[in-house]
Amino acid sequence: MRLRFTKMHGLGNDFVMIDAVSQRIRLSAEKIRKIADRRFGIGCDQLLIVEIPSRPDADFKYRIFNCDGSEVENCGNGIRCFAKFVRERKLTGKNIIRVETKAGVLIPEIDEDGDVIVDMGKPELAPAQIPFQADQQQPRYTLELQHGNIEVGAVSMGNPHAVLQVESCESAPVEDWGPQIEAHPKFPKKVNAGFMEVLSPHEINLRVFERGVGETLACGTGACAAVVSGREQGLLDEEVKVNLPGGSLNIKWPGRDHPVIMTGPAITAFHGQIKI
Amino acid sequence: MRLRFTKMHGLGNDFVMIDAVSQRIRLSAEKIRKIADRRFGIGCDQLLIVEIPSRPDADFKYRIFNCDGSEVENCGNGIRCFAKFVRERKLTGKNIIRVETKAGVLIPEIDEDGDVIVDMGKPELAPAQIPFQADQQQPRYTLELQHGNIEVGAVSMGNPHAVLQVESCESAPVEDWGPQIEAHPKFPKKVNAGFMEVLSPHEINLRVFERGVGETLACGTGACAAVVSGREQGLLDEEVKVNLPGGSLNIKWPGRDHPVIMTGPAITAFHGQIKI
Repeated sequence: MRLRFTKMHGLGNDFVMIDAVSQRIRLSAEKIRKIADRRFGIGCDQLLIVEIPSRPDADFKYRIFNCDGSEVENCGNGIRCFAKFVRERKLTGKNIIRVETKAGVLIPEIDEDGDVIVDMGKPELAPAQIPFQADQQQPRYTLELQHGNIEVGAVSMGNPHAVLQVESCESAPVEDWGPQIEAHPKFPKKVNAGFMEVLSPHEINLRVFERGVGETLACGTGACAAVVSGREQGLLDEEVKVNLPGGSLNIKWPGRDHPVIMTGPAITAFHGQIKI
Repeated sequence: MRLRFTKMHGLGNDFVMIDAVSQRIRLSAEKIRKIADRRFGIGCDQLLIVEIPSRPDADFKYRIFNCDGSEVENCGNGIRCFAKFVRERKLTGKNIIRVETKAGVLIPEIDEDGDVIVDMGKPELAPAQIPFQADQQQPRYTLELQHGNIEVGAVSMGNPHAVLQVESCESAPVEDWGPQIEAHPKFPKKVNAGFMEVLSPHEINLRVFERGVGETLACGTGACAAVVSGREQGLLDEEVKVNLPGGSLNIKWPGRDHPVIMTGPAITAFHGQIKI
């Protein structure tokens, strides 16, 4: 089988994009693993397959697979690449695209700069919903680590996040504290650990130690969680530029009961053909 | 500039192959770095550019660049990919191909299985030529490491190699001893460290800790050096299958004053186009 594909990335989180609308494909977990291998295959963090939707209110359906072949629900960097891909490959002429995912129908929009605007949903701050063990909801909670106590905000963006304010992202002890926060017993489903340096009320630097993965170049839900937590602590304005190691996102959150709006780039690296 | 390329690998050592015979290209070090980046570009260990030769006795010229943009002389895995590439892309109809490199004219040959046969040149065993500090040439030399003494063979295949016999490659202390051997003061230009498990007189397992790089999936000159050293020590026959982590090579060495002949695969992963 000869497969056409496009390689894209969102802030360095990279995807092999496959159009299964205009070409017929069947990929086993073994083939996904082979495609995702950076030396023997194409190489990527995840595969994103665009399909014909199963419901009438969606333009497309997409599925995202990790490089081990397992399927995941959604990905903030992946949905931006999806929107850019279906426009660039002329699979649609729309700028506002309705896409069926495992997390429901999402509606990314391409703005005049070519960046992609995504509604990331409402944050969840109630401890039981994160889940986080606390008697009542607060802007910050005390967490015991090996060296002593730290203060973190706790937010769910569909997945749990702990957000820690640091003086400098560059010198933040991400490698040391990240695994301790991730596995802290107060987060029964573990947690993503964000290290946030507040530059001004409308700009932060952020490094994220992702649950089960380690530090990454860019975590979309982590950027949202950091802005929500920063606003809950009275540190940030409604619209914030978030500088991650892989590049910047714009995050907008008017406040409680509103969804978080993420705007960011999706870049095409190259097009290719592979025999699999 | 739109650039056509092919992604290939030799035992997992991967290359972006660029045909500069039928397309005009100019690549700065910055563009090479971008192409070699595995998340933001195409991703590879090295770039290999096929050009029109500058001398009449060669069919092609090739140049190999590391991902930092620096140019290297030659590469055993790269020359196999070169030969397969010019045949598959129909740049030549020959099976024996004369190619101008920084290391002189080399003559790879494609065999009936599609594997590539390469004359890797004569090994150098004289200590001063390796370079290695020893009073006289011997099959093995004693080397002091932190934990005690080990015995190694010393061979140059254009680059220096120390070859250590181990009971098992799987449990060999490559991470611990590799850096100690690499930087041992008896090798004034440092050395590649091979850990060789002799399965029979015609088959070995091999792991190589490469000078300045660390352990790799496959080191062509390391496979040659291991067989030469094994034969000097009376352990191996003339033709040996060498199993490396990335796959297997066939190494043939009749003995002193003969060149080492390496036969191995070169695999096309995919074809692509990139705007740079």
